[in-house]
Amino acid sequence: MSRPDRSILNRISVPADLKSLSDAELSRLADELREETISAVSVTGGHLGASLGVVELTVAIHAVFDTPRDTLVFDVGHQCYPHKILTGRRDRMRTLRQGGGLSGFTKRSESEYDAFGAAHSSTSISAGLGFAVARDLRGESNDVICVIGDGALSAGMAYEAINNAGNLGKRLIVILNDNDMSISPPVGAMSKYLVRLYSQKPARDPGAQATDPGLPLAPPAMEQTRGLLEDLYIEGSLFEDLGFSYVGPIDGHDMEQLLHVLRRVRDRAEGPVLIHALTEKGKGYEPAENAADKYHGVARFDIVTGHQQKSAPKAPTYTGVFADSLIREAEADTRIVAVTAAMAAGTGLDKFQKRFPERFFDVGIAEQHGVTFCAGLAAAGMRPFCTIYSTFLQRGYDQLVHDVALQRLPVRFAIDRAGLVGEDGATHAGAFDVGYLTSLPGFVVMAAADEAELVHMVATAAAIDDRPCAFRYPRGEGQGLTLPERGMALEIGKGRVLREGSKIALLSFGGRLSECFKAGAELEAKGLSTTIADARFSKPLDCELILQLARHHQVVVTIEEGAAGGFGAHVLHFLASQGELDRGLRIRTMTLPDRFIDQDMPRAMYEAAGLNAGHIVATALGALGLEVDALEDFASIPRAVTA
Amino acid sequence: MSRPDRSILNRISVPADLKSLSDAELSRLADELREETISAVSVTGGHLGASLGVVELTVAIHAVFDTPRDTLVFDVGHQCYPHKILTGRRDRMRTLRQGGGLSGFTKRSESEYDAFGAAHSSTSISAGLGFAVARDLRGESNDVICVIGDGALSAGMAYEAINNAGNLGKRLIVILNDNDMSISPPVGAMSKYLVRLYSQKPARDPGAQATDPGLPLAPPAMEQTRGLLEDLYIEGSLFEDLGFSYVGPIDGHDMEQLLHVLRRVRDRAEGPVLIHALTEKGKGYEPAENAADKYHGVARFDIVTGHQQKSAPKAPTYTGVFADSLIREAEADTRIVAVTAAMAAGTGLDKFQKRFPERFFDVGIAEQHGVTFCAGLAAAGMRPFCTIYSTFLQRGYDQLVHDVALQRLPVRFAIDRAGLVGEDGATHAGAFDVGYLTSLPGFVVMAAADEAELVHMVATAAAIDDRPCAFRYPRGEGQGLTLPERGMALEIGKGRVLREGSKIALLSFGGRLSECFKAGAELEAKGLSTTIADARFSKPLDCELILQLARHHQVVVTIEEGAAGGFGAHVLHFLASQGELDRGLRIRTMTLPDRFIDQDMPRAMYEAAGLNAGHIVATALGALGLEVDALEDFASIPRAVTA
Repeated sequence: MSRPDRSILNRISVPADLKSLSDAELSRLADELREETISAVSVTGGHLGASLGVVELTVAIHAVFDTPRDTLVFDVGHQCYPHKILTGRRDRMRTLRQGGGLSGFTKRSESEYDAFGAAHSSTSISAGLGFAVARDLRGESNDVICVIGDGALSAGMAYEAINNAGNLGKRLIVILNDNDMSISPPVGAMSKYLVRLYSQKPARDPGAQATDPGLPLAPPAMEQTRGLLEDLYIEGSLFEDLGFSYVGPIDGHDMEQLLHVLRRVRDRAEGPVLIHALTEKGKGYEPAENAADKYHGVARFDIVTGHQQKSAPKAPTYTGVFADSLIREAEADTRIVAVTAAMAAGTGLDKFQKRFPERFFDVGIAEQHGVTFCAGLAAAGMRPFCTIYSTFLQRGYDQLVHDVALQRLPVRFAIDRAGLVGEDGATHAGAFDVGYLTSLPGFVVMAAADEAELVHMVATAAAIDDRPCAFRYPRGEGQGLTLPERGMALEIGKGRVLREGSKIALLSFGGRLSECFKAGAELEAKGLSTTIADARFSKPLDCELILQLARHHQVVVTIEEGAAGGFGAHVLHFLASQGELDRGLRIRTMTLPDRFIDQDMPRAMYEAAGLNAGHIVATALGALGLEVDALEDFASIPRAVTA
Repeated sequence: MSRPDRSILNRISVPADLKSLSDAELSRLADELREETISAVSVTGGHLGASLGVVELTVAIHAVFDTPRDTLVFDVGHQCYPHKILTGRRDRMRTLRQGGGLSGFTKRSESEYDAFGAAHSSTSISAGLGFAVARDLRGESNDVICVIGDGALSAGMAYEAINNAGNLGKRLIVILNDNDMSISPPVGAMSKYLVRLYSQKPARDPGAQATDPGLPLAPPAMEQTRGLLEDLYIEGSLFEDLGFSYVGPIDGHDMEQLLHVLRRVRDRAEGPVLIHALTEKGKGYEPAENAADKYHGVARFDIVTGHQQKSAPKAPTYTGVFADSLIREAEADTRIVAVTAAMAAGTGLDKFQKRFPERFFDVGIAEQHGVTFCAGLAAAGMRPFCTIYSTFLQRGYDQLVHDVALQRLPVRFAIDRAGLVGEDGATHAGAFDVGYLTSLPGFVVMAAADEAELVHMVATAAAIDDRPCAFRYPRGEGQGLTLPERGMALEIGKGRVLREGSKIALLSFGGRLSECFKAGAELEAKGLSTTIADARFSKPLDCELILQLARHHQVVVTIEEGAAGGFGAHVLHFLASQGELDRGLRIRTMTLPDRFIDQDMPRAMYEAAGLNAGHIVATALGALGLEVDALEDFASIPRAVTA
């Protein structure tokens, strides 16, 4: 690689600096910005592919519009690296997704240029419409620009926003960043429609037909785009049906065309406009362009070769163990099907898909539909495993309540990314599922303490035929345990005692069990005999185990990787109802604290959360009155003083 | 009214009996069924308008298809009264929505003809697709028919399902029951599109144009519909863009046309088909046809006059008090806007709309978008009140977490229908919001003990400018209290002691406060001095109050109208963290029980839930060991024995 030229980029400290550049300079700036983005992400890892797809778009938007007065909302936000570089954060780009560093997404607290934070998909049009309505109520005149990917359009939320915006008629500019990819190749009729749209409807030559309907058109000659704005509108598209003016498709990497169209839309558009820009994920970096996922999310890598510098895995991941276990169960039960919401690779179900292509369903980014689709499958006699990250299952919460729990349908929820997840930070934390699932009548709720337990929990879920169940497991590698050939169904509502002690009982629900063992060793070293138990179930509770721990120990500590209101809360409810607290019990419930925790290495995040072995020791000692100061670290309870 | 003729209906005990009827008899059956439906609902009250709109459709579907082998899924399910009459439940129709009676919705446990239960909107295509996929996996050949209203199409969930179904290409019949009404007149671009579709695209005479674009076409002559199925398809509709064959629009009250089209679709359709049927809500009953809401939900009424026999209200409703209070706050703060999701009348915001038309927004049945639209408004400096029933706010849960809480945006959630709601039953219970909101960092969560408190909580919400907040209040009438002219902002995180006692403390969160007073009187009568306190906030907790109650009473009982894991759980977490349970505290947490509670009068539902005064007394006495048997009634804790 030649010595990088940043002569134009070096002149940009805020987007206003772009106003002094010629169109040709803006094109060169885009090239420099692309190289700078690759260079930064090679050090940190991150969502490279998406960011490379919007380099020209980002430059053009900041050049044509007047941010932050004009409001720019990126959907998902993981494509914002070029935007961060242009908006005063270039010097911190090599801290991206690190502890104390820049977020990998847009974030309001980080910059006034991040008008609205994101990380989950398909929120941008809703938020943008809020900004547009507020502007009109105040009689102001700034523009609102939303950049949304084609994958994000599979989510109902985006449709709801389009439906509302198309009706209200407020001026709002939506740029559809169509790279024909979400994380994996997109699914859904909308995606097929977009392909037809750009293969059949050349924006500025309605008579011509593309020869290859599968590929985008070559960009039309500029003289044609120099017509009136009206020339750019194509009537009759689905977006027009929904009240938007539709402009496109245009080449999202052709700076001249982008600038022209954006200026025209800025100067003349009325009401909501959708600009359909064709882009290429990973554009301009050959290793990314050639990769199947276009470098959706990468580890740090060598720029020249593109080789990612992932550290060698020490043990199979929970995700992989889940996928293998599910395949074994599905071999034994033909009723088992697997459903993912645009996360085939992330959930490991790509492996299931290869083995059982006809029993695998990717519904797209559509968790609401995905959950009720599973409810329908279960009502029809199938046994679906609905496999969704904890943080994204929040999108299907009403469907969990209304379609699954109320009808007591045997849908099995495989909840990946439970607890704190590392570089993706607070937006992706799996913090709330234990609480919101354990309060649902009829559900069985499990958490895997390690990857061998996960194997058994998949088998347990496969055996639960009369009601819904869920099992959660963390992101990342397991502990390298020897795995059983096939899981054994656990007894429902029964935990296990792993070490018998007499003074302190540590009752873990989920992946903190290993920390409990460390804490137990420390406590034993201090002469405090410690029982270690794994609850396995937060619903139904192992009441017998809980009573035994409460009656035969001076201290009981519950530990979970979830917010207050979950496992520990239900243990407390139970003990209170039984009068077990009447005569005194030194019980402490350790949960995620009552605040959001920014990205870092998972261990550091759990340190910040106060859920590592040292905190468990301090909590147990504090309960015995041995080191009261240790309680200072324990901040998991909402307090009035936070008011 | 002449003596009702039920000569054909009397011959129908199951849908299979329809097979022996001629088309002319089916038409007459529809007339009898309409009269029977009106007669039944006049006794019970219920969703009359929706049911009257689908009488012919219901007869035609059961006549043409072979239920329950063919799967019929009604969206929302409140239009299922004619369906219930035809499927063996005619003799129980006068128990509709009553305690122990028929549900007002489809319900799997009630009949094999109710393939999938519903009550929340827009789930039918997702569920139906599950049935269709299961059928194909098993190599079976039954049909799946979903009946969905045009209002339900504003929800993203329906779009997600269409997007997935259009892509999969499975045979699936979706009947769009287009009455141009959801509960109130529909909003959204899709609704406008449907009007254009039926006003511009006559199904069987493409050359003609309707003269009045606002009205449905007159039904085409039958000879035209006798063409091939292909004649019925209109290409180029939005639904075709999304992979469905589109048939229509057809007259949903013309039995001959319905039978013809359904038979043709049944015999020839491949892949997913959408049949666009135009219907009239309240059809065939003049008082309903003339009413603005077409008798969406009615009290029992006089058949001849249509006069509803509502009992005279004793006090203003919580809903009305909320609306008036919000108007007063909005008069003082121009940043306040109000947002509803298709529930302008139900939430009382129709009054706000009249006063501030430009500051009122009905986003349609689109809670996901609604919440994030509010987040956008708040980020842009407005102060939105997002007004959604507790049960429907579940649809926007991820948006609460990701768009509102994480960004600490000052969106105010007015949560109507908290707790048990009466005739709508378990599907509409507001059971989970306290739990899922109280676990969110930064939120302020309040519950109104009475309607005067609600006035203050609206004022409090209006004063909270730096973070999100929520306040919940029950369905129905208040207690007839004198209301303050304008609310006073409460101190955040501070409860109130209403009666000072010394032995027992009853700590209420929400509307059970009046039951606490009754219980307190009983306890005092037994010589047990009782403190009564209103927590007002579940977040932040009033830690000082809780400590004071715990330290100066032998028994503390918390009471709330929500599931375990909510207010009581957070009180327990706090007390445990402070070591207040170490030396013993007779604490009991009364919550909704760990089961769904069927429809009944609210008081009877709370009796079933064990949350009335008698239960509070029994719980307090039980805690003192005075009447241990009383604990039998207390079933709010998940127990292993439920496994």
